[in-house]
Amino acid sequence: MGLITLLTDFGYRDNYVGVMKGVILSINPTAQIVDLTHGIQPQDILAARFNLLTSYEYFPANTIHIVVVDPGVGTQRAVIAAQVAVPTGVQTIVAPDNGILTGFPITAAAALTNSAYWRTSQPSSTFHGRDIFAPAAAHLANGISIEELGDVLSAHRLVSLGIGRSIATERGYYGSIQYIDHFGNLVTTISGASLTDQPWCVQLGGDMIPYCATYGNAKPGQRLALIGSHGYVEIAVNGGNAAVELNANLRDSVKLHLLGVLGS
Amino acid sequence: MGLITLLTDFGYRDNYVGVMKGVILSINPTAQIVDLTHGIQPQDILAARFNLLTSYEYFPANTIHIVVVDPGVGTQRAVIAAQVAVPTGVQTIVAPDNGILTGFPITAAAALTNSAYWRTSQPSSTFHGRDIFAPAAAHLANGISIEELGDVLSAHRLVSLGIGRSIATERGYYGSIQYIDHFGNLVTTISGASLTDQPWCVQLGGDMIPYCATYGNAKPGQRLALIGSHGYVEIAVNGGNAAVELNANLRDSVKLHLLGVLGS
Amino acid sequence: MGLITLLTDFGYRDNYVGVMKGVILSINPTAQIVDLTHGIQPQDILAARFNLLTSYEYFPANTIHIVVVDPGVGTQRAVIAAQVAVPTGVQTIVAPDNGILTGFPITAAAALTNSAYWRTSQPSSTFHGRDIFAPAAAHLANGISIEELGDVLSAHRLVSLGIGRSIATERGYYGSIQYIDHFGNLVTTISGASLTDQPWCVQLGGDMIPYCATYGNAKPGQRLALIGSHGYVEIAVNGGNAAVELNANLRDSVKLHLLGVLGS
Repeated sequence: MGLITLLTDFGYRDNYVGVMKGVILSINPTAQIVDLTHGIQPQDILAARFNLLTSYEYFPANTIHIVVVDPGVGTQRAVIAAQVAVPTGVQTIVAPDNGILTGFPITAAAALTNSAYWRTSQPSSTFHGRDIFAPAAAHLANGISIEELGDVLSAHRLVSLGIGRSIATERGYYGSIQYIDHFGNLVTTISGASLTDQPWCVQLGGDMIPYCATYGNAKPGQRLALIGSHGYVEIAVNGGNAAVELNANLRDSVKLHLLGVLGS
Repeated sequence: MGLITLLTDFGYRDNYVGVMKGVILSINPTAQIVDLTHGIQPQDILAARFNLLTSYEYFPANTIHIVVVDPGVGTQRAVIAAQVAVPTGVQTIVAPDNGILTGFPITAAAALTNSAYWRTSQPSSTFHGRDIFAPAAAHLANGISIEELGDVLSAHRLVSLGIGRSIATERGYYGSIQYIDHFGNLVTTISGASLTDQPWCVQLGGDMIPYCATYGNAKPGQRLALIGSHGYVEIAVNGGNAAVELNANLRDSVKLHLLGVLGS
Repeated sequence: MGLITLLTDFGYRDNYVGVMKGVILSINPTAQIVDLTHGIQPQDILAARFNLLTSYEYFPANTIHIVVVDPGVGTQRAVIAAQVAVPTGVQTIVAPDNGILTGFPITAAAALTNSAYWRTSQPSSTFHGRDIFAPAAAHLANGISIEELGDVLSAHRLVSLGIGRSIATERGYYGSIQYIDHFGNLVTTISGASLTDQPWCVQLGGDMIPYCATYGNAKPGQRLALIGSHGYVEIAVNGGNAAVELNANLRDSVKLHLLGVLGS
């Protein structure tokens, strides 16, 4: 038993993901494996982080997440197993120490230095997902502790990336686009949790996009801003692709205007 | 236990499908989950319907199918659980009431109005798949009845779409292209069940495509019409892409000519 | 129980893969199913072979692999179940006899001629994956022998393709590009196993690409040749797409130069 998820930039054309599953099931024949996504753009660490950060709390305690978005494979970057707290207990993330875990509530971490838990003592220099990450996750699902996998690390010493945040002003928030999904919806860095019943709208370049609680209140083709399922303010086009129609890109700036205090 | 399938337009880049699986496995840790496809074009209800209609009978009794192709999320459209008869028993489909179930042999239905079976009493306005559909399916797989999920509905009152059909004439059938698959094969609305040993060919625009029982009887690059695996008359190019080579689109008209009665 | 993998050219848009899983689980409700990939280009037998050949040894004994890349469906080509030896025991591959198994260590084979193990005695002429391959694999996972599936075949009589190989010269190796992956990495036919500590570089057209043990030793954007995770000499661009940057295609010739004996 044991639930293991996979999040990679391997795409869907090759056998890399399948091979990792073979390695997992060779060590833990009853593991349950879920694909989070393999459609991360090659080496896009921030997109991998966003996808994991907005996923892990929907999984049960004891889930083990593997992330292989690893431009530094073959360098001295560490591979780690990190425990994160969830309301029902603890989960473990196996990932390269390249900033993917920035912002996670990590309670303990270890480097995967103990080669006894690698697939081979001579791992490939280009595919640690197969030779180090997958075996570690399978052994964790079999019940070993992260301390058995290698040297304990301080969570404070893990690589941390500068993440686009939002800044509160008197009149609203400055933020940026942190993720664009398959539908072309633009997920901003502005959290919906800080918004009250006060009306607001969002500015992207020269376009002002009105708040609309749901797609159901918008006409087909209408631009709308709403609090998306990730919990962030999101810009969408009802039945359309906002990224295309608004010519928007990752990291473009946005402003949220609280109405009634817009002015001057 | 319990077998749950997923059919969505979420694509393969984001975590939406993975998150739904996390929600399911949090409620029903031993559910078996199968992806039907997530490659439906955004909001293409007819393609979702076609894919489910030509799939469900290959699954065992008690399978639960989740369909999330839901342009009306956040409107007053209902979300339903509908029972359909299969030769070995009954299956259940969890879907928006937007016409996806047009033509299915529905024996009972309920609206998912009982918030006790939602993931949260405050579901996201944009992702009912995560907050309503997935929990409902997981609870169904745990053994609850559809009546526990909410108000019983009459199957006759569900939304029904006008579906392109075929029309029999003295000389054959009029129909249209109802689906184009990954290989570029053109699936028409003309059922193969009504065809006998009488020879036939298919007309698409100005092109006349001869019947050919199997690819094996066609030369590489040859156009052929045959009864496809879905049970409908299909136009293909042996080793090629019929949609591209014949410049064909969804809903294009086709005529099936029964030979010997062709002419005038 | 029983572990079954799927390798097809069905892509991710349609229900073909999902339907095969429904058929498998109808016969063997507890089978564990792993997708190897469904992203093989339509009818690319060599790519299917490469992906299976570089995958199967990572799976446990008794795994059953289904391969449906089958341009000859509906012809007289046989469908076979073939046993291959792995260090821990035996696996079985269910595939069309079209050369996909060229180079595998086959120990026994049978043609799937016994219609008692088909899904229907009237299989579709275009989807043997659903009607013949999937049921055979499910029954094998239930414990039947390949001999029960049909006529025993000699492994020597299976279809064998000419596979691009590498040729040793005094100064190195001639080879070609046998696979291009999702990242644009160019996998050659030259095995890394034959290389020693003697330095080498790889020539592709007019470009000379230096050996570099790992990406970690290369600068961003640098071209490098290394022994890839498949075990073959591979050409890559650190953080980039070698196929695009070097304008390389499948079957392009490469030369590996052993340094110190380059010259004249």
